[in-house]
Amino acid sequence: MPRIPVAQIALGMDLRKQPFLLREKRITTTRAGSLMLQVILADRGGTVPGVYFDVPSHVPDSLATAKGVAVTGRVGEFKGQLQVNIERIAPTRLDDLEDFLPTARRPLEEMTQELDALLGSIQDPHLSRLLASVFDDTQTFKAFCQAPAAKYYHHACVGGLLEHSLAVARLVLAACELHPQLNPDLALTLALLHDLGKIHTYDPVSFEMTEKGILWTHLYMSAAEVERHIDRLPGFPAELRLRVVHAILAHHGRLENGSPVLPMTLEAIVLHDADKLDADAQGAIDHLARPQGDGSSFTERSFMHETRLYRGTRESSGPAGGEQRELW
Amino acid sequence: MPRIPVAQIALGMDLRKQPFLLREKRITTTRAGSLMLQVILADRGGTVPGVYFDVPSHVPDSLATAKGVAVTGRVGEFKGQLQVNIERIAPTRLDDLEDFLPTARRPLEEMTQELDALLGSIQDPHLSRLLASVFDDTQTFKAFCQAPAAKYYHHACVGGLLEHSLAVARLVLAACELHPQLNPDLALTLALLHDLGKIHTYDPVSFEMTEKGILWTHLYMSAAEVERHIDRLPGFPAELRLRVVHAILAHHGRLENGSPVLPMTLEAIVLHDADKLDADAQGAIDHLARPQGDGSSFTERSFMHETRLYRGTRESSGPAGGEQRELW
Amino acid sequence: MPRIPVAQIALGMDLRKQPFLLREKRITTTRAGSLMLQVILADRGGTVPGVYFDVPSHVPDSLATAKGVAVTGRVGEFKGQLQVNIERIAPTRLDDLEDFLPTARRPLEEMTQELDALLGSIQDPHLSRLLASVFDDTQTFKAFCQAPAAKYYHHACVGGLLEHSLAVARLVLAACELHPQLNPDLALTLALLHDLGKIHTYDPVSFEMTEKGILWTHLYMSAAEVERHIDRLPGFPAELRLRVVHAILAHHGRLENGSPVLPMTLEAIVLHDADKLDADAQGAIDHLARPQGDGSSFTERSFMHETRLYRGTRESSGPAGGEQRELW
Amino acid sequence: MPRIPVAQIALGMDLRKQPFLLREKRITTTRAGSLMLQVILADRGGTVPGVYFDVPSHVPDSLATAKGVAVTGRVGEFKGQLQVNIERIAPTRLDDLEDFLPTARRPLEEMTQELDALLGSIQDPHLSRLLASVFDDTQTFKAFCQAPAAKYYHHACVGGLLEHSLAVARLVLAACELHPQLNPDLALTLALLHDLGKIHTYDPVSFEMTEKGILWTHLYMSAAEVERHIDRLPGFPAELRLRVVHAILAHHGRLENGSPVLPMTLEAIVLHDADKLDADAQGAIDHLARPQGDGSSFTERSFMHETRLYRGTRESSGPAGGEQRELW
Amino acid sequence: MPRIPVAQIALGMDLRKQPFLLREKRITTTRAGSLMLQVILADRGGTVPGVYFDVPSHVPDSLATAKGVAVTGRVGEFKGQLQVNIERIAPTRLDDLEDFLPTARRPLEEMTQELDALLGSIQDPHLSRLLASVFDDTQTFKAFCQAPAAKYYHHACVGGLLEHSLAVARLVLAACELHPQLNPDLALTLALLHDLGKIHTYDPVSFEMTEKGILWTHLYMSAAEVERHIDRLPGFPAELRLRVVHAILAHHGRLENGSPVLPMTLEAIVLHDADKLDADAQGAIDHLARPQGDGSSFTERSFMHETRLYRGTRESSGPAGGEQRELW
Amino acid sequence: MPRIPVAQIALGMDLRKQPFLLREKRITTTRAGSLMLQVILADRGGTVPGVYFDVPSHVPDSLATAKGVAVTGRVGEFKGQLQVNIERIAPTRLDDLEDFLPTARRPLEEMTQELDALLGSIQDPHLSRLLASVFDDTQTFKAFCQAPAAKYYHHACVGGLLEHSLAVARLVLAACELHPQLNPDLALTLALLHDLGKIHTYDPVSFEMTEKGILWTHLYMSAAEVERHIDRLPGFPAELRLRVVHAILAHHGRLENGSPVLPMTLEAIVLHDADKLDADAQGAIDHLARPQGDGSSFTERSFMHETRLYRGTRESSGPAGGEQRELW
Repeated sequence: MPRIPVAQIALGMDLRKQPFLLREKRITTTRAGSLMLQVILADRGGTVPGVYFDVPSHVPDSLATAKGVAVTGRVGEFKGQLQVNIERIAPTRLDDLEDFLPTARRPLEEMTQELDALLGSIQDPHLSRLLASVFDDTQTFKAFCQAPAAKYYHHACVGGLLEHSLAVARLVLAACELHPQLNPDLALTLALLHDLGKIHTYDPVSFEMTEKGILWTHLYMSAAEVERHIDRLPGFPAELRLRVVHAILAHHGRLENGSPVLPMTLEAIVLHDADKLDADAQGAIDHLARPQGDGSSFTERSFMHETRLYRGTRESSGPAGGEQRELW
Repeated sequence: MPRIPVAQIALGMDLRKQPFLLREKRITTTRAGSLMLQVILADRGGTVPGVYFDVPSHVPDSLATAKGVAVTGRVGEFKGQLQVNIERIAPTRLDDLEDFLPTARRPLEEMTQELDALLGSIQDPHLSRLLASVFDDTQTFKAFCQAPAAKYYHHACVGGLLEHSLAVARLVLAACELHPQLNPDLALTLALLHDLGKIHTYDPVSFEMTEKGILWTHLYMSAAEVERHIDRLPGFPAELRLRVVHAILAHHGRLENGSPVLPMTLEAIVLHDADKLDADAQGAIDHLARPQGDGSSFTERSFMHETRLYRGTRESSGPAGGEQRELW
Repeated sequence: MPRIPVAQIALGMDLRKQPFLLREKRITTTRAGSLMLQVILADRGGTVPGVYFDVPSHVPDSLATAKGVAVTGRVGEFKGQLQVNIERIAPTRLDDLEDFLPTARRPLEEMTQELDALLGSIQDPHLSRLLASVFDDTQTFKAFCQAPAAKYYHHACVGGLLEHSLAVARLVLAACELHPQLNPDLALTLALLHDLGKIHTYDPVSFEMTEKGILWTHLYMSAAEVERHIDRLPGFPAELRLRVVHAILAHHGRLENGSPVLPMTLEAIVLHDADKLDADAQGAIDHLARPQGDGSSFTERSFMHETRLYRGTRESSGPAGGEQRELW
Repeated sequence: MPRIPVAQIALGMDLRKQPFLLREKRITTTRAGSLMLQVILADRGGTVPGVYFDVPSHVPDSLATAKGVAVTGRVGEFKGQLQVNIERIAPTRLDDLEDFLPTARRPLEEMTQELDALLGSIQDPHLSRLLASVFDDTQTFKAFCQAPAAKYYHHACVGGLLEHSLAVARLVLAACELHPQLNPDLALTLALLHDLGKIHTYDPVSFEMTEKGILWTHLYMSAAEVERHIDRLPGFPAELRLRVVHAILAHHGRLENGSPVLPMTLEAIVLHDADKLDADAQGAIDHLARPQGDGSSFTERSFMHETRLYRGTRESSGPAGGEQRELW
Repeated sequence: MPRIPVAQIALGMDLRKQPFLLREKRITTTRAGSLMLQVILADRGGTVPGVYFDVPSHVPDSLATAKGVAVTGRVGEFKGQLQVNIERIAPTRLDDLEDFLPTARRPLEEMTQELDALLGSIQDPHLSRLLASVFDDTQTFKAFCQAPAAKYYHHACVGGLLEHSLAVARLVLAACELHPQLNPDLALTLALLHDLGKIHTYDPVSFEMTEKGILWTHLYMSAAEVERHIDRLPGFPAELRLRVVHAILAHHGRLENGSPVLPMTLEAIVLHDADKLDADAQGAIDHLARPQGDGSSFTERSFMHETRLYRGTRESSGPAGGEQRELW
Repeated sequence: MPRIPVAQIALGMDLRKQPFLLREKRITTTRAGSLMLQVILADRGGTVPGVYFDVPSHVPDSLATAKGVAVTGRVGEFKGQLQVNIERIAPTRLDDLEDFLPTARRPLEEMTQELDALLGSIQDPHLSRLLASVFDDTQTFKAFCQAPAAKYYHHACVGGLLEHSLAVARLVLAACELHPQLNPDLALTLALLHDLGKIHTYDPVSFEMTEKGILWTHLYMSAAEVERHIDRLPGFPAELRLRVVHAILAHHGRLENGSPVLPMTLEAIVLHDADKLDADAQGAIDHLARPQGDGSSFTERSFMHETRLYRGTRESSGPAGGEQRELW
């Protein structure tokens, strides 16, 4: 039986050894001592919850999040949402992991072409060599193309780091057009390298933060890794190194946000603001897209924006036509 | 004798009834009771200090900042800078005020053409009518084209509000390309109207804040003025009014910065970040351009950025060539 | 069968199609898939919880909070509190809504008489005309007399806005006696108008915040609405308008509390402090009055006061006699 | 020659051994090494500056602020203000210190009568005995009637503490009328005792803070002193002691303002807000009354209010008539 | 049947009228209306949970936390942890309370000997008499030896206050060796007395905060109690009293942490930092020791440290050998 | 003529080409246009001010702070302090720079011996090799022994970094005795390496911050430099590297203080607190030692402690005898 994509699962279907990525698991106990297992099953197109009543006690321990599981059961409904009533669940090996992870909105190939074009546009020879040193390293390049940009569910996706870095690049280039005092080569380099350390910050499958990510922060890792590349580039100007490392360390913009130093150069200032604009926007889009079934015209509080977001009134067709209603 | 532009004033010149705009005046007293008047004289191209020793006591009171003065004296030097040793100074009427006020980097005509093009690109009929209601009012349009965007000296210039509004417009349009969930018509409208109240916030000549500007804030005035225009537009959707007024009130992004509410819609969030990017960048450019003669590689603390800014080491030619040295 | 007021409901009573206002509803599911509906039923005198086991799935969706319901069932007990075991519940029209909403401590008529007396005491002709413009508008007057002053349950009541406004008026008049530098006409006007926008901020039945209330804030709406009235008053002094609008915008006292500007006039300062005194006191009274059955001498944390409040030791008769025991 | 009150000093007068209180002294040196002494001379009605050129070097050291000086010299003018050109200045004993210190707005006798009436109105026997214990102590009573309420110049005056305590008393009584849940005896007691420690906090002549005032704070001293009185009152209820000491410790309202605990009882909350209202109002009145000769419609920043205050536009006659112009 | 210590309880054991200290109780209700009692049973060596299904409704009310209970039942297992299935539970008197409370790591006798030695080392006669006045009071001495130093479970233990005070004493003495400008007698006195008020702050059995502890804070009580002792010491220098009381009031280091004044003397500064070092370290040790069964390499967030703590990776044997693994 | 040490300079002495280190220079202009040069002249034992009236305009530019100058002139007095009246001043080469820089309180040799002993006490082979890698590098060792620990004048001294690092080491070892859960090898390593980056942070003569110090922070440089050493140590455990780098990055304790991450391990927590204790104490000692001639019992505000510090009352002999009077 071929795998049924999550997006095509429907009420009443029978699943047999269907492979999924296990996103979350929770075990709860009833008074009588019987166990209930609740899971979130995923593939790249979405997620579906599952429940296993009276699960044998050895089963939950055999399963690991961010790993494959094979599920047998029937698709039912709970509070108006589909739910798999599990009869059997066991670890399995996922042959093609990419089929099971969410991916960035833009196709990977389109993004790598844009990256190439941007790299080719750099005229400063030192910055050009620095970028080449980073991205010509196959392992780094591959990690950079696959890493997520953050750990939260919807924002976390394969290619998220690359997508975000390119967006920041476009915004700083727009700023360079408005403000000729900006050095576009430096601004572009910073846009592409400021989050480099994120390739060590998230587990590439579960998107959970690594120990290094928590204990060291990606700010430190980005700066230290860029310095390691610069160490290998003879003749790299000291002044330029000063500015590159500074802007990376300062890109969170405020001490309270984890930058050990405030942005003190024009490029560092613009990097921070462009980074914030793209992250704020994508975070809001993701937050507005999360299903929240209470019919309110406001979302739950968004931790990132420190407030609830406004969805728009239900009856409203929205100011720009119905097709954008949900995000408004 | 024709007026000598400030930029052409040189050591040893004699000035006779030369007209200037009086930017600042300060009176100090020596122990012996004699008075000394120190002034900053300006035209659109720059400023020069002047000093009047043993000034008769009625003279300082006869002069008003942000008004014209006629100066007679000789150009000397003090601590390595030019300084006019004043022999006579008196109020005068400036025939063409524009010759005496700093202006935006971009030519006015270029900017009004860009504004026209942006207005023409709006497809939403209600937003289009709202913008027309605002900008077809001759008095508002003129004030909008002349007002400064802030009160600090270098940032303050004729056309500053228009230049800033257009820059924000370009940045939100760049964001719309990256994030199709944004409504470009709404985002553009907000970029052009969010600072509308600044036409009532600064004195058009001295650039000092008005009483209204201090006691009411431009946030409130922008929102209330936009509502007055909407009141006159039959059929303007309530939902759209909600979003427009909200984003204007929220565009400072944080309660501590004077917004009574945090941005809660995607367009409000992006408006705030784009506004901050342009203001931060222009503020840094202006701050780095201020003459500070102590030879340090850092500026004085920038109030806006809450830190000193880095100019670059003196001996360095800078990463991108000498022509950008000063701003680095 | 006549309606039994909530305050008279007793254990063992049978209710038949008894009308209530539905304050809250919550649906929970048992493991077996059966649904349980939990509700809070209210009239003006109080609230009683209800529970409906094995509720048919279409029933919860048919009910709306802040609307009438007709309930059939028997009054039981749960954890020492009365609880209606519901057998049938259906939407119904409430003929006299006032019988079902909590009301202010002071009788409405007494309050409107006090308001009239205060309005009559104003000697400044412009402020007198401004207040007349606002309160002679029948719709505004009615809304002002009925609106709550806040959304939290106990504080929220019909007439709450009027009661609070009058209390602030009395406090600012007390301040005027202490400090003759205060302008009593202006202080009184501000006390009565500072929360005017709250008539648009809360749903008059559910007391939930409206979209406008959340996205615009009542501060903005109060100021903008007062300006609309002033626009219609020829000869209203500009200086007075400056002060009135400023004090309304500033009455939350701190940027962090949502005022876009700090109070900068004597009357604005006193308005803020008097407003805070009355709100803090009423909020504490309401919080101490909330039933919290754990026997502790402290309440749960009060969000408004950022701390738990002290009820007094249980055995204590209290410093001023037993009749005040609960609030101490 | 009889003493000329400061208020009657006029240009050209000759002073001979005229007694003053020395408010401030400053010594500056000219390049040639000669010394100049600048002083502020005061009596209860006001202050006048003085200057002593080429003062012998032993003279400044012989003078102490907050002590008497005898001045010989002539009244001149400097920058439009009167200034005594001193020829001789020497320490002197002031026979009647009260003639040289600023006093509260209200006459002392009127205030002590009001205090008596308030003390007589207390019905709770324990609180009544506590207040008697405090105010029947002659030394405490005298200190309480003379102490200032704060160290800044205009607010600091003989009787300031008493005037402020009575004002807070009136405000909490107004709150008691609005909110019957308040215990008026307790609220009144707190109003009168919350600042008791200020009798140890300020020097009674210079109004400078004492070492105890700085190192211990008046909050601690008020609470500890009230506890010492309670220790001597047999049968004082433990619950009442809890509440009295708590409210005193909490009356600054926020940890950042130096209260070690937030107000947790209704009376403590109202005490804090009433205290703040009166202090904010009096502080604004004093700040607006300070001479600031720059003609701006705003004052210098008020440290207490964290902002500049608005004086009103110059040409305006003010909303309530010219006699209040200065304070607006 | 002799009492079985908690540490020796094992699966399958039958308990008969076994005495425990009742740490916590919680009553929950099942849908059918039956009650379930969940308890935490303790002796000095540890705790074990218990559950009583279908408990008669009068039983829970008869039990009080921090009091003795006699338990009959059988030891079962729930989610891999021991759990007593209770058949009968009733209040009982605990003959030797010390057997049921957790105690400090160091033996009491060792600590009192160290205290004696420290007291004997003081050379300043006034401080020596002050310490004698405090610790020669039998009741105070006993309370000081038994009180906990904080209310949280693991940190709370009999002797905790003494253990902490001695640790601070050792740290300030280490600081005195590094910085000879410190006065060791004063520093040591402060280390031993700064938390004196904690003997009134916690219930000696439940370790819950007392009303006084919450409403007055131990800072105030420590200072006021030390002052009462000083009041009885003739000739105690005013300057020394100033410094002792100041340092106690300031020992939380920041206004936000509840000190009404910042540390302003060298000894007060060092007292605060040493106090913080010991509390931070012990708090981290306690937090890391709490069982948290999720297998993460990080703990739950520690409220005291405002972050999660790092336990170390599971597979790691730790940098310094396996015996310290758990705390890493 | 042999050099006269600053400590031996006396009124009336004539200096001829006396070498000093130039600490500060300031040029001021009199109205007549003549220049006055004010300088601070230093050797290792102290500083003396100097003044050069009518200085030729080329002289000030020829002098550089933190460089040698040769001074000819006579020692006079100004406001009771010695002052050199300069007749000639010119750049000179200082043969033995150490004679002109302030040094740490403890002799260098004593400190390096203590460092050796500490290094020898480490038992963990990896940490031992890491420390050897750092301190066996001659250049690093020399820089570490000479660098100051901070830029402020009195705290800044040759050997200051070493002195501070050893003090932190002693404090963490004291903490290890109190809390056996601490790993002493790790704690000691962190004490010695946490400020390693300070060897790049301050100019070794002027003690001014370097550009790297400002733009990168010593936190980043310490961590990155330690990682470079670890990179060269095969077999260094990943877990240990995690902990070492984390604690260095976290040692400022709070994000607001420039640490990008909070301390999350026991050793990181103790490192931060011990570092703060020693810095707070030394900073207070230095601040209290600064001459402030106004006779107040309080110092000027200490930026580091965010408050004024208390010196003690003048007449007081102090609690511990007169010999410590100044620091109290």
